[in-house]
Amino acid sequence: MAPSKPVTAALVVIGNEILSGRTRDANLQFLGAELNELGVRLVEARVIPDVMETIVETVNTLRATHAYVFTTGGIGPTHDDITAAAVARAFGLELERNAEAEALLRGHYKPEDVTPARLKMADLPPGAALLENPVSKAPGFRLENVYVLPGVPRIMQAMFKLFSHELVGGEPVLSASITSDVPEGRMGMRLSEIQDRYPDADIGSYPFIKDGRAGACFVVRHPDRDTVNAAADEICDAIRAFDSEPFEDVRP
Amino acid sequence: MAPSKPVTAALVVIGNEILSGRTRDANLQFLGAELNELGVRLVEARVIPDVMETIVETVNTLRATHAYVFTTGGIGPTHDDITAAAVARAFGLELERNAEAEALLRGHYKPEDVTPARLKMADLPPGAALLENPVSKAPGFRLENVYVLPGVPRIMQAMFKLFSHELVGGEPVLSASITSDVPEGRMGMRLSEIQDRYPDADIGSYPFIKDGRAGACFVVRHPDRDTVNAAADEICDAIRAFDSEPFEDVRP
Repeated sequence: MAPSKPVTAALVVIGNEILSGRTRDANLQFLGAELNELGVRLVEARVIPDVMETIVETVNTLRATHAYVFTTGGIGPTHDDITAAAVARAFGLELERNAEAEALLRGHYKPEDVTPARLKMADLPPGAALLENPVSKAPGFRLENVYVLPGVPRIMQAMFKLFSHELVGGEPVLSASITSDVPEGRMGMRLSEIQDRYPDADIGSYPFIKDGRAGACFVVRHPDRDTVNAAADEICDAIRAFDSEPFEDVRP
Repeated sequence: MAPSKPVTAALVVIGNEILSGRTRDANLQFLGAELNELGVRLVEARVIPDVMETIVETVNTLRATHAYVFTTGGIGPTHDDITAAAVARAFGLELERNAEAEALLRGHYKPEDVTPARLKMADLPPGAALLENPVSKAPGFRLENVYVLPGVPRIMQAMFKLFSHELVGGEPVLSASITSDVPEGRMGMRLSEIQDRYPDADIGSYPFIKDGRAGACFVVRHPDRDTVNAAADEICDAIRAFDSEPFEDVRP
């Protein structure tokens, strides 16, 4: 069976606070793992500042290249939240008040708390489909293949879980991971030979030092279970050839 | 005094394991904070897979745009470590055995442990300046304005500390951060007015929910201390106008 063309995605992390080191991003790791299970491959992420032209250009570059684009950050009630306006502009649109989003916000806040700043979160590009926010109500939105999500990981993750069934992936990539105390500098040539025998598999080598114990974890990734297991078996054999035994062997 | 032109940098995080969610990157946050102190602004980061053409293109795009480019990942002894070859190709060069790097590796390993895979780490672009690795000896390198570093955070960080004095920054950006329980949806309009009065300052608003307490942290960033403090004072006044008191007020 010929493998189907991979369905790819890109993530745009928007926020000065990530680039200044103030905040450590957590959305990339979450999204990469979740998409993988759905058969969508996250193949690129860009971290960019809250600058209109940069957001517009980045969204336009990536939405033309990938099946899905996700943005995180910049959709709150303050002046530095410009993602919705930037995504609108990327599509040649202007923001307008979205009645459904406004109703959600008015339903959530006491009348005296419905501030102009909060209502700004209901200004969306025309044609945007709302993405439900089960935590703090202010919705995200989807415009064509661009999903616009908040930066706060807890909210972003809760929202993703509500719409992820809509995403149409290809074959999920399966993986095996084999860990031992054989260092990658010893395994290198054997691993390279195994890679040559399974040219379509993605074989990675990740050294570690943990609790005083050094070694490497070898990961095989491929959509076909038999291929993953066959390559993983060869890696285990190579480890045993160094008189060692894998102490972790996780298979798909 | 007219502000000097900002000195900018970009980071390229290379590795399938980051995009698949297997590993959470820690180098972006470290580098963003460290560069900031040196007056270098990290204005872009890209996370890309271990794919030759992608690395070459990304490095070439970014090195033409920024004073400094840093790459992390992909410089180990295994077949999936292709960063050195990709950076060489980005400069139109081919890898060759670097005598100084080879001597370092031969000095570190017992003769029987000097495997071909490990010696691969001494294959560098001609003209590369070695970057000392105080942890595991295998050096990184600099080629013109491109700094090639390992992905393991502990090693990357130790190496960075040894060469960071070479980097020539502009004015460091100073910051104040004011935290209170006034939600950003209430502060929004006031904050926007303050931003308008300090158009060159970067004023950010970061909501949080922590230990059952909700609120927002407002951050002012600018190279001039008086500007930072004046804007921060106005933010404190705005918070007090809501009958609240900042419970954290960190100044430069």
